[in-house]
Amino acid sequence: MDRLKRQIGFIVELDKLKTILRQSWLADGSRRENSAEHSWHVALMALVLAEHANAGANLDLARVVKLLLLHDVVEIDAGDVLIYDVSGNADKAERERRAAERIYGILPEDQSAELRALWEEYELGETEEARFAAALDRLMPLLHNFLTEGRAWMHHGITADQVLAANARIAAGSAALWDYARGLIDEAVERGYLLPPKEKNSDP
Amino acid sequence: MDRLKRQIGFIVELDKLKTILRQSWLADGSRRENSAEHSWHVALMALVLAEHANAGANLDLARVVKLLLLHDVVEIDAGDVLIYDVSGNADKAERERRAAERIYGILPEDQSAELRALWEEYELGETEEARFAAALDRLMPLLHNFLTEGRAWMHHGITADQVLAANARIAAGSAALWDYARGLIDEAVERGYLLPPKEKNSDP
Ligand SMILES: [Ca+2]
Repeated sequence: MDRLKRQIGFIVELDKLKTILRQSWLADGSRRENSAEHSWHVALMALVLAEHANAGANLDLARVVKLLLLHDVVEIDAGDVLIYDVSGNADKAERERRAAERIYGILPEDQSAELRALWEEYELGETEEARFAAALDRLMPLLHNFLTEGRAWMHHGITADQVLAANARIAAGSAALWDYARGLIDEAVERGYLLPPKEKNSDP
Repeated sequence: MDRLKRQIGFIVELDKLKTILRQSWLADGSRRENSAEHSWHVALMALVLAEHANAGANLDLARVVKLLLLHDVVEIDAGDVLIYDVSGNADKAERERRAAERIYGILPEDQSAELRALWEEYELGETEEARFAAALDRLMPLLHNFLTEGRAWMHHGITADQVLAANARIAAGSAALWDYARGLIDEAVERGYLLPPKEKNSDP
């Protein structure tokens, strides 16, 4: 039963995502988060927050959940890169493409094509489902940063203008959640969890 | 916006499932697995193995995924109990009921009822979706045990007849996966990862 063997081989390979560490810390501050538990968390976030999607009742929620369960699998080979890291992001797309080739290639061909297409849909961000999924993937680290008093932000010296710019695409998936996120960012600055925007040089 | 606040409160509460440790070890043997990453893993397992469900094309896969994402949330309060632990399982149902009351109670009422009903569906195991979800939840630890050369089995002195009895309900969700599981159990005994069945006393 070669088909089942390949499916099990893929499932076993997925186990490695549990060892890929993200920049975020757990809400209790005890350790950094891994990409597997993060993927579970955003998938459940989708179930709970679906009503806030811009797409409204047209949203295919089951598809959003699939996109989120799969969105970080390529990190098994390509690692997690801080969204504020310019050099680390330069060859990210190529590294992730190769990772998708190898990892989804473990599956029987029909499933390999199907799951890889879902990952590409997420990456392209052109469907309502991909945009809402990406919005949740951005909102979650804001929550973790807020709950840990800006632990990852402070560690990397991130400023509020960087956070606003990097997360503005939340609005493309959910205007309501972008409102919420902006409120969280403002409050983080007030509480001293996040550095205020860098002063623009006022001399001409 | 009290509704969104309650939803976010529930999402933040879920973070705690990342600190609940299971008996299983990661496939690379580096550490024990937590219930959040496990839930992600079985949800993806459902996407890949759906074709093996007894229900065939009648299976509502999106519902199976929801059941699996939610199935362990009560462990935030009730903890993970080894399936072979008789005393630990005695008051498990009552502890989990109280946990569901508290945790799902954080949500707005309509969602509290909806998500709690999904968890109860999983627990009752009376729908095709619940039976298939439970089959995957049983198959996964068999895989982890096999890949770590029986680490959790050996630690607890578990025997093959115990494993067969505790996992027989896999067949109710998927006859094909139960075949596969029995093959894995046999091979685990052959390789010395799992103790053979306890000798029955041959004297009358
Ligand atoms: Ca489980």
